[in-house]
Amino acid sequence: MGLNSNRVDHYSGSGHANQGLTSTAPATITVPGETMRSLELHNVCLPPQKTTLQKLRHRLSEVFFPDDPLHGFKNQSRFRKLILALQYFFPIFEWAPNYNLTLLRSDVVSGLTIASLAIPQGISYAKLANLPPIIGLYSSFVPPLIYSVLGSSKHLAVGPVSIASLVMGTMLNEAVPYNKDPVLYLKLAFTATFFAGVFQATLGLLRLGFVIDFLSKATLVGFMAGAAVIVSLQQLKGLLGIVHFTTKMQIIPVLTSVIQHRNEWSWQTIVMGFCFLGFLLATRHIGLRKPKLFWISAAAPLASVILSTLLVTLFRSKLHGIATIGHLEKGLNPPSSNMLYFHGEFLGVAIKTGIITGILSLTEGIAVGRTFASLNDYQVDGNKEMLAIGVMNMAGSCTSCYVTTGSFSRSAVNANAGAKSVVSNIIMASTVLITLLFLMPLFHYTPNLILAAIIITAVIGLMDYQSTIRLWKVDKLDFVACLCSFFGVLFISVPIGLAIAVGVSVFKILLHVTRPNTGVLGNIPGTQIYQNVNRYREARRVPWFVILGVDAPIYFANSTYLQERILRWIREEEELLAANNGPSLKCVIIDMTAVTAIDTSGLGMVKELKKMLEKRSLQLVLANPGGSVMEKLHQSEILESFGLEGVYLSVDEAVADISSAWKA
Amino acid sequence: MGLNSNRVDHYSGSGHANQGLTSTAPATITVPGETMRSLELHNVCLPPQKTTLQKLRHRLSEVFFPDDPLHGFKNQSRFRKLILALQYFFPIFEWAPNYNLTLLRSDVVSGLTIASLAIPQGISYAKLANLPPIIGLYSSFVPPLIYSVLGSSKHLAVGPVSIASLVMGTMLNEAVPYNKDPVLYLKLAFTATFFAGVFQATLGLLRLGFVIDFLSKATLVGFMAGAAVIVSLQQLKGLLGIVHFTTKMQIIPVLTSVIQHRNEWSWQTIVMGFCFLGFLLATRHIGLRKPKLFWISAAAPLASVILSTLLVTLFRSKLHGIATIGHLEKGLNPPSSNMLYFHGEFLGVAIKTGIITGILSLTEGIAVGRTFASLNDYQVDGNKEMLAIGVMNMAGSCTSCYVTTGSFSRSAVNANAGAKSVVSNIIMASTVLITLLFLMPLFHYTPNLILAAIIITAVIGLMDYQSTIRLWKVDKLDFVACLCSFFGVLFISVPIGLAIAVGVSVFKILLHVTRPNTGVLGNIPGTQIYQNVNRYREARRVPWFVILGVDAPIYFANSTYLQERILRWIREEEELLAANNGPSLKCVIIDMTAVTAIDTSGLGMVKELKKMLEKRSLQLVLANPGGSVMEKLHQSEILESFGLEGVYLSVDEAVADISSAWKA
Repeated sequence: MGLNSNRVDHYSGSGHANQGLTSTAPATITVPGETMRSLELHNVCLPPQKTTLQKLRHRLSEVFFPDDPLHGFKNQSRFRKLILALQYFFPIFEWAPNYNLTLLRSDVVSGLTIASLAIPQGISYAKLANLPPIIGLYSSFVPPLIYSVLGSSKHLAVGPVSIASLVMGTMLNEAVPYNKDPVLYLKLAFTATFFAGVFQATLGLLRLGFVIDFLSKATLVGFMAGAAVIVSLQQLKGLLGIVHFTTKMQIIPVLTSVIQHRNEWSWQTIVMGFCFLGFLLATRHIGLRKPKLFWISAAAPLASVILSTLLVTLFRSKLHGIATIGHLEKGLNPPSSNMLYFHGEFLGVAIKTGIITGILSLTEGIAVGRTFASLNDYQVDGNKEMLAIGVMNMAGSCTSCYVTTGSFSRSAVNANAGAKSVVSNIIMASTVLITLLFLMPLFHYTPNLILAAIIITAVIGLMDYQSTIRLWKVDKLDFVACLCSFFGVLFISVPIGLAIAVGVSVFKILLHVTRPNTGVLGNIPGTQIYQNVNRYREARRVPWFVILGVDAPIYFANSTYLQERILRWIREEEELLAANNGPSLKCVIIDMTAVTAIDTSGLGMVKELKKMLEKRSLQLVLANPGGSVMEKLHQSEILESFGLEGVYLSVDEAVADISSAWKA
Repeated sequence: MGLNSNRVDHYSGSGHANQGLTSTAPATITVPGETMRSLELHNVCLPPQKTTLQKLRHRLSEVFFPDDPLHGFKNQSRFRKLILALQYFFPIFEWAPNYNLTLLRSDVVSGLTIASLAIPQGISYAKLANLPPIIGLYSSFVPPLIYSVLGSSKHLAVGPVSIASLVMGTMLNEAVPYNKDPVLYLKLAFTATFFAGVFQATLGLLRLGFVIDFLSKATLVGFMAGAAVIVSLQQLKGLLGIVHFTTKMQIIPVLTSVIQHRNEWSWQTIVMGFCFLGFLLATRHIGLRKPKLFWISAAAPLASVILSTLLVTLFRSKLHGIATIGHLEKGLNPPSSNMLYFHGEFLGVAIKTGIITGILSLTEGIAVGRTFASLNDYQVDGNKEMLAIGVMNMAGSCTSCYVTTGSFSRSAVNANAGAKSVVSNIIMASTVLITLLFLMPLFHYTPNLILAAIIITAVIGLMDYQSTIRLWKVDKLDFVACLCSFFGVLFISVPIGLAIAVGVSVFKILLHVTRPNTGVLGNIPGTQIYQNVNRYREARRVPWFVILGVDAPIYFANSTYLQERILRWIREEEELLAANNGPSLKCVIIDMTAVTAIDTSGLGMVKELKKMLEKRSLQLVLANPGGSVMEKLHQSEILESFGLEGVYLSVDEAVADISSAWKA
């Protein structure tokens, strides 16, 4: 016999027979504001009794397995379970058996399209991370292949991305400037990639995917805009042809550096750079305006690279002021596991960089995966994706790759070009393979300015001013979080900017809990509904009662506030009644519907409040306390002090029953 | 014309005439689970339109002035307002005019009683803070006088307290051991007191009193128990007669120190010490058991001091192993403003110590003030009290006092002895004044062991094991916070222990937001009430509908989770229906009553969910969205996509209206 039925017995045996569940004897009374209605009361139940262990298990399963990932395994044969497990961990087994030529054709087209983007972007982003350009190509070869085995998104185009490249470049360069010790820098980059992978895979394995939710959309909008500004300004190095440039990332040293090195500006570089930048921005604009013409913006970077390389090669005697990429080794990814750096002074920097780039690239990858999954009506499992991305980065760190994830821009092109499965990633990797094996010498005279132009074109889309306006319109505190991360990134640093923004977001939650809304409720005539009298002009206060709505769980952080606020509401209602010569107050009803939890401080407050009101001859009544609140009221023995006339299932029943009791 | 009436116009002009507020045309339909009922729908209103500035002002006034401190000033003459302001800042003007001889008699009795406690405790607590004993007496003279002018509690007995003394002693001694540089130590103590006062007064002035709410009751229970254990063990120094003792505060070095210095143990000290300790504990027990005999426990410390001093004075040739206080200067508090230390190496330590002792003494003072106010049916204003305590400490730091606040034990004695106003503090201060001027030489032979015994007796009451058991029974996470602060204080340090416990408490709030309760609701037959089907066995699911309750605001931290969880509920309901050959689902109703807020991520989730469900031919309906949620749905233009059939005032109206629309 559960608590539930105990309570029923307890209640129906205590003289209020009409409060028992089984009793249906109707009593007619006059409810204020209405004429006549039959009254039938209902018990407030405790939730089914559970042991501490059961509760803990339920809590843990909600925290870690909210999506019930094993529901497909129920009632299956052992062999079928094995197959399902294999498909669960290696999604390739799920789609490969049904793969066919039609799908392949689509995937080849989209794979070649994203390869034409991935090659110039790979080289550019590696530059952004202060790494040799070829690392960007290596990173576009191994990780996509691994993802195609482990990943569950059909549209994700895997490779280096701007944000992670930027953050890695900044954080490592501040510790070990690339110019001073390129080998150590490279080691740290691979080590950071390794830790990023470990961190990502761990989050996935421990099913802690919700950690990335704490980077709210508002935070990310501000962060990405700030990063885009910084990155664009940094590209002035390439666009203006500056040789000596600051390694710092804040806006002030970057701008100072641009102006201080005016003597290094090269007019040839400037003219050519801004021409190509204009061309790329124009094609981007066309691609955005007419989605059908997406291939123009997709092909533009490769076209610019080819064109600019040709120009520099042909006129190289005249264009000697233009810096080029220079010699690139032919050949596949060399192993780099011997370059991982597990002890020494800079290990801390590598781990920190790994965690931050890891979480940022995860956020991008998961968001992109989810977006295209929902557009194409399939689901991706966040935790599984994290595991896939993590393993991909761990493997990458051993094969000369740096941090990779699903890129937003390339995934969009991929989807537009008709990708049907991760095979498009395999096609892209094969194209990169051919490039690595045979085409590397062609990049010798590719000018750096074109890489700068490609980067600016890519990051300019991260400045989402429309979202910022929407944030301002809809949620001022989200807007503040957005501004904090924007200015934090611009003026302080990436990790601190992010930390401030997360702090503001958490503060918002705490503020909502610390100062919840409360209000006086009134009856909407002709219904059993009670609503805030400020919001519903037709809602009528009920004589003798103050009905208060509390819009938050009652916690240590707000119990003092709520106590004061409730007393103030009562005082104000009394003053209002006194001013209108109304009847005096006799009963305070607290509508607990939105009080979804209570802790020991909150319980203390309820007890205290009841005592204080009793001294003033006011009755305190709780309406519709939720399951966990009832349970805690019961466990702390406060429920007993309320007794029968103290807890009702709805405000309406409370008003009806108490008024009828007064009449009787 | 506000938004509210706009909406009404908008709605009633759109073909659903019966949804307009003014229309009352009833339509009879068959609602599932019931026979026949008249149907009348009600609009969901937006809250009254407010500008951003008005909203900001409202928010700020709720955050900083929730108690509306100026409500008494409304509609008063200018002169009356001046008087009220004077009374507001100096409560002495409020009670002094009505003070009379009867009240004075009570206050003299209680003042003398607490003085008999304050003198031995003052000396002991100063020892606990590693300060010269006389500082404890100085601190029992000036601060109570200042509080009696500024304070609004009638029962608070002001002076040094054990927790603040302990924390100051620990934190300063770890930076500058008292034995090495007593003058610097004293300077730091006064400086810390000054900063504690500044911090407290600032919190009060800026009305940030809610900061102390973040030290939840659970945290404090654990913290005080840990501190009591450490303090009691440290008193073994005095009780065993050890000369060389560790300056560390963690349990391990303290215990090691006790055992290592076994050779210094003095049997005379041990025998005498434990006798007096037994006596004090016995009188404390009697005082607790029989509140009428409180004077026994109140008088015991002074009696013990007198008795032990007499014993040592008389038998001093034989009891030379017993350490005594030694020479104490006669005279009033010397000024100490020249000893404040505003620059140099240890300024950081002083500020940190000041802030932590400040917040701890504030917590004790405010809690004690509130407790006795509610017992005696008056109110204290937390922010005003903070200002009073802060000013008192700032003044104290310039008159050779260290941190003081309202002591729990002495305030209880004060209230028991019949105190009627802060005049009892003035009487106590006068008694201390006489002691300082004339009686100091009498303490020369007071043994240190009696101070140790007094401290142990005082702190033993801080170990509240019953509260701990209650925490375990009622709220497991509060229990964890309690354990964290207990073990943190015991094994790491006071600030870190407190920080961990606050972290756990905040984590609890975030966990509740990140993984809120959700559940399927069903109709309770014969009512318009919908409740969780797991909690109410009589609640019946409604065919064709899934009705889901979401028990938290929808934020960035839970929007992904909620989306997945809602889809899982729908999937599970569909499986349940398929297993029972029930009718297929057609509509998902989300009961938004407990969704008290929504942010941009949450809005995105609602939009996304609606789109996903539409693809599966399921209608998504929101029931009873709150004011701020409606406002945000409206601002983000999501409300428009829901249209008329998408938002209802109650689940019941939604079910009734949608079923009738299907029928028609």
